[in-house]
Amino acid sequence: VGKPYPPVEYGEYLKLDRLLTSQLPKSVEHGRPAHDETLFIIVHQVYELWFKQIVHELDSVLEMFRQDSVDERNIGVAVTRLGRVTEIQKLLIDQLRVLETMTPLDFLDFRDLLLPASGFQSVQFRLIETKLGLKQRVALEKLPSPGRAPAEQEDALRRAASEPSLFELVDKWLERTPFLELPEYHFWASYRAAVDDMLAADRRTIEANPTLSEAERLVQLQEHERTAASFEALLDEPTHDRLMREGSRRLSHRATLAALLIHLYRDQPILHLPFRFLTLLVDVDELLSTWRYRHALMVHRMIGTKIGTGGSAGHHYLMGTVERNKIFTDLFNLSTFLIPRSALPQLPPEVERRLGYHFPRD
Amino acid sequence: VGKPYPPVEYGEYLKLDRLLTSQLPKSVEHGRPAHDETLFIIVHQVYELWFKQIVHELDSVLEMFRQDSVDERNIGVAVTRLGRVTEIQKLLIDQLRVLETMTPLDFLDFRDLLLPASGFQSVQFRLIETKLGLKQRVALEKLPSPGRAPAEQEDALRRAASEPSLFELVDKWLERTPFLELPEYHFWASYRAAVDDMLAADRRTIEANPTLSEAERLVQLQEHERTAASFEALLDEPTHDRLMREGSRRLSHRATLAALLIHLYRDQPILHLPFRFLTLLVDVDELLSTWRYRHALMVHRMIGTKIGTGGSAGHHYLMGTVERNKIFTDLFNLSTFLIPRSALPQLPPEVERRLGYHFPRD
Amino acid sequence: VGKPYPPVEYGEYLKLDRLLTSQLPKSVEHGRPAHDETLFIIVHQVYELWFKQIVHELDSVLEMFRQDSVDERNIGVAVTRLGRVTEIQKLLIDQLRVLETMTPLDFLDFRDLLLPASGFQSVQFRLIETKLGLKQRVALEKLPSPGRAPAEQEDALRRAASEPSLFELVDKWLERTPFLELPEYHFWASYRAAVDDMLAADRRTIEANPTLSEAERLVQLQEHERTAASFEALLDEPTHDRLMREGSRRLSHRATLAALLIHLYRDQPILHLPFRFLTLLVDVDELLSTWRYRHALMVHRMIGTKIGTGGSAGHHYLMGTVERNKIFTDLFNLSTFLIPRSALPQLPPEVERRLGYHFPRD
Amino acid sequence: VGKPYPPVEYGEYLKLDRLLTSQLPKSVEHGRPAHDETLFIIVHQVYELWFKQIVHELDSVLEMFRQDSVDERNIGVAVTRLGRVTEIQKLLIDQLRVLETMTPLDFLDFRDLLLPASGFQSVQFRLIETKLGLKQRVALEKLPSPGRAPAEQEDALRRAASEPSLFELVDKWLERTPFLELPEYHFWASYRAAVDDMLAADRRTIEANPTLSEAERLVQLQEHERTAASFEALLDEPTHDRLMREGSRRLSHRATLAALLIHLYRDQPILHLPFRFLTLLVDVDELLSTWRYRHALMVHRMIGTKIGTGGSAGHHYLMGTVERNKIFTDLFNLSTFLIPRSALPQLPPEVERRLGYHFPRD
Repeated sequence: VGKPYPPVEYGEYLKLDRLLTSQLPKSVEHGRPAHDETLFIIVHQVYELWFKQIVHELDSVLEMFRQDSVDERNIGVAVTRLGRVTEIQKLLIDQLRVLETMTPLDFLDFRDLLLPASGFQSVQFRLIETKLGLKQRVALEKLPSPGRAPAEQEDALRRAASEPSLFELVDKWLERTPFLELPEYHFWASYRAAVDDMLAADRRTIEANPTLSEAERLVQLQEHERTAASFEALLDEPTHDRLMREGSRRLSHRATLAALLIHLYRDQPILHLPFRFLTLLVDVDELLSTWRYRHALMVHRMIGTKIGTGGSAGHHYLMGTVERNKIFTDLFNLSTFLIPRSALPQLPPEVERRLGYHFPRD
Repeated sequence: VGKPYPPVEYGEYLKLDRLLTSQLPKSVEHGRPAHDETLFIIVHQVYELWFKQIVHELDSVLEMFRQDSVDERNIGVAVTRLGRVTEIQKLLIDQLRVLETMTPLDFLDFRDLLLPASGFQSVQFRLIETKLGLKQRVALEKLPSPGRAPAEQEDALRRAASEPSLFELVDKWLERTPFLELPEYHFWASYRAAVDDMLAADRRTIEANPTLSEAERLVQLQEHERTAASFEALLDEPTHDRLMREGSRRLSHRATLAALLIHLYRDQPILHLPFRFLTLLVDVDELLSTWRYRHALMVHRMIGTKIGTGGSAGHHYLMGTVERNKIFTDLFNLSTFLIPRSALPQLPPEVERRLGYHFPRD
Repeated sequence: VGKPYPPVEYGEYLKLDRLLTSQLPKSVEHGRPAHDETLFIIVHQVYELWFKQIVHELDSVLEMFRQDSVDERNIGVAVTRLGRVTEIQKLLIDQLRVLETMTPLDFLDFRDLLLPASGFQSVQFRLIETKLGLKQRVALEKLPSPGRAPAEQEDALRRAASEPSLFELVDKWLERTPFLELPEYHFWASYRAAVDDMLAADRRTIEANPTLSEAERLVQLQEHERTAASFEALLDEPTHDRLMREGSRRLSHRATLAALLIHLYRDQPILHLPFRFLTLLVDVDELLSTWRYRHALMVHRMIGTKIGTGGSAGHHYLMGTVERNKIFTDLFNLSTFLIPRSALPQLPPEVERRLGYHFPRD
Repeated sequence: VGKPYPPVEYGEYLKLDRLLTSQLPKSVEHGRPAHDETLFIIVHQVYELWFKQIVHELDSVLEMFRQDSVDERNIGVAVTRLGRVTEIQKLLIDQLRVLETMTPLDFLDFRDLLLPASGFQSVQFRLIETKLGLKQRVALEKLPSPGRAPAEQEDALRRAASEPSLFELVDKWLERTPFLELPEYHFWASYRAAVDDMLAADRRTIEANPTLSEAERLVQLQEHERTAASFEALLDEPTHDRLMREGSRRLSHRATLAALLIHLYRDQPILHLPFRFLTLLVDVDELLSTWRYRHALMVHRMIGTKIGTGGSAGHHYLMGTVERNKIFTDLFNLSTFLIPRSALPQLPPEVERRLGYHFPRD
């Protein structure tokens, strides 16, 4: 009884003796100390610590969704943990402002001493992308050559690439959503009718808009056709599957319908947390893209149009990855298929009751 | 004597009676109130207020640089005012988080009532881009059709397009920098020698880097050639002028050299504030690009792949403008031409004295 | 059929003609233009626009909780709307950085022209405090004298002071929580036993801690007594009621127990959103306090130790309000009464089932 | 010739093997893993890394100001480095949002395992306060007992307490300002006349303000007396010295006058960077105070009214330190003594010329 735990010292607990002695500037080692190299080291070390935390959160969420049946109580936990990931991501983005207090000229004082490592070559960052679901091929082709990263980190990366990613687990979880076919309501038929009305109205708007030139009108009509075709693909499984094979869709047909349903009826208690969860996946992806974009801008101002001579990427390459590496594009695109609540088929009372809580709370 | 000014009331001073009665949701007008339309209105109104403030700051800086001889004391003022612009820009970016608390489905509750205005069609935003120096052709082709914006705003935009932009005034100001040719030091010859050494070292690094595949090495050698050619263009005025005609340079040859000199010798008192000023131009441009990128992401999640049926731009179009509309690209690229301070030609004492203050302060 | 709505113009929709012509600097009016007065006006106008938005959100949440029985689906909506309020509050705090780009000397260029309005005298801000539940006496005593604010704003403030605040509605809502007495589990007895164990362990820790001086140990033991007394008050209604009369508690005994239960069992689906809702109330209060503190700091650096000669408050007064005006202190203090989950009484399966969803989702 | 430096590996350079293996949760060690303990560790480790960076920047600024004669070029460098400190401080404050994603209940899962270390007991933080100039007595009394921090850290703290702080060095540097007595302009006489006019006008405003009650007017008149007395103290050295002995002033008389002069004539080139430097000292202090306040709020919501049983401070103690530990209060208070530029004595042309640059730039 009582407290059996030995007393813990702050510095010992945080391993400050190791942590605060792990900044060894090359410029000092080579006898030409550059003040800002310490900043360069610490900024990257802080990145790596936050990446470790993100991996820790992702691993716990992956574990929850790896189950055949996700415990309903865990959706709330997953929402909290992804929410934490987004708070960390905001710091990662703001942190670039600190690095940018180092001017390009200050960087030159020690950049040549760091070759070929001078760029951002974080295995943990690629681990995060892979665990989220960035296609493995991309992730692996950029794997560092042997010797560049600790072997355990590389192993972790290969393992992550061989295991189901969060994207894939969410895909499966959505497919298992039990509300998609309820005998008592013909959701998709009503939805299709509402969509048809909306598309017709949109077309009339384009045709009648007096502020458009003829050329603009033509462009818009073509895009309208594409939108109509998107809806076709949404409601027609074979078309959707063809788009998946062609690479312009990644989420399965059934998962897409489930995600759409969750968005449309998110105010039902049982769908509220799943809705927040899907929204957070988009948040995480958006913040990751924003980080990539801001990072590419920072590289541009730091090294101009030069490439990283040691193999690190120049800003043109980085800019190219910003949009290409988005993972949950299908969830971003979901908004294409939303229709106004006023046009939504009303849920039958019995269905609505079943989407509520057992316990009449109030 | 004494205070002759009539007392001022907080609400009257801020025109709160007009300000707080200027939110008239269409959804209320049409009898189907949508809670989030107020947010949509207020977010855009706040944007417009901040834009007005940015225009106010830019106008004062333009006025200072429009003089044949910029008062030295004004560089500090310009630095303060551009610094303020960047603080506002950070808010503009963060403000997107508030708008994103409105979900796509909430937006649909009133989006059709706003056509064709549902997108972001701010004349003031284009005014800011134009005053900074975005090429007028681009700015003007997107001018709203008659009737879409208050006539005064359109006039302001046309006027801005016909007057020298901040880019152009800075170009001229840099060209007038008096330190470029000082009889007593052969700066550019020493600089060229240092550059040649650096390029040779870079080339050897690429050739010897054991972590590169042959294909990667080839790519890097090609990029290295481009870097070497960039330096040629920097030091050879005719080449630079050709690049200007071809559109890959915009800053004049002489202005580019001056900007480079300011970066390299920024610690000299007389160059310190000019250096901060040039850095702030890059900051403003970077934050503007970041805003455009974040805005495009937000549009993507809000309307998916749909275009704005009323003529507002879809996210694909917006993504295209993010990098294309950068203005001070030549200042970003300047880092390409920096060389380490250790390789910099030492200033002769007499030159250094002349770059200091009259008054021996300490 | 089709779109019956007249086309909407961006500028007309946002009332830009009124909005962008509502900045009328007194310094211009009096013929001695001060550049920064425009900033001063616009910063305060932006504050007022955001305040209006916060009021809009609070009103909708108040409306939901004014019902005798709060619709379960509305908790999720309330969470979203309070979440939006916190995002706006973060902007309000960051916005002080923009105002601080105006130096004290710049402020002096026009400060005397604004008397007695030069301080922050927002009726809407007091409206927000009052709607949240700041005790009305405080709010009303600072009501502006006749003529200082638009009459409608004053009316709104008086009306808010006479209606139930969010604090009071939440108090009632918590009191109605149906889980407090379930025949099948003796929650409070188990909780009390766990608390007793914890307090005994804490006391032993203090007594045995070798790093404390005797004086420190004495202080800690006294504080420990206070903690023990707090628990007594929590579990004993008459004591709690006495503390309420004395002013050190505001939330009723029953509501406090309900809030504690929601915190302890927040992972149960039916309690998850109520938990987030209570957390957001603390977030809102924390951000409001942070804003007050940052504002007081800003006033300190802007006017030093002077008071606002026109009746606006100096920084000493403002510092005094920072903590005093906290509203949901009882929810902050709730952490005092939490016990580790491992010490929590396990819910009987039947109870747990009843706290879940009707529909077996997965 | 060529590159003689051995290739550097990213992971080895950043010591990732040590960094990423330094998170050893006590909850894991004791066989009851708590998910959030990793966050708790990493958040504190990131704090410590940033603290190390702040110490690095402060040390370099201290070194510059320790010289008998501060190199003019170094003021710009000091401005850059303090600017970097403020960017880091903004992250430190925002980072609390990440820690707050851990709920009080989550903290309880492992808090008892960390005793007596569970609070924030950073020696580096106290080092920063001490180097900035927090009175040593305060800093030392909170020195951890032997064994609680690495001996080197304690040594660093004692050393810092025995060396001149930034406050003291800035005090001396200001005292050496050479512009205080120039034969050709009677600055302080003109200033005193302008002040007398201003005080008289303020008094008339209070007496005539129709919105004040008599009680309010009395309070304001008393505060006005205090303001007038402040000015007396400013201009009368013996009074200032008495206030220093009494503890309500810390900056010397001569340094205070110099700081005021720098504020009033900051647009003169030679005073611009000194002005920015003084402003940044206030920024640093303001951000430090904001951090303390936000931290105290966070502790309140995390542990309620409990104290840290192991000796760490409860939120009441922390709140008490927020304002008390401000360091550059005299610089905050300087605004008390500013007078409008329009009332400022005009500099004679010869003085103005001497405050400019040698080189006629434009």
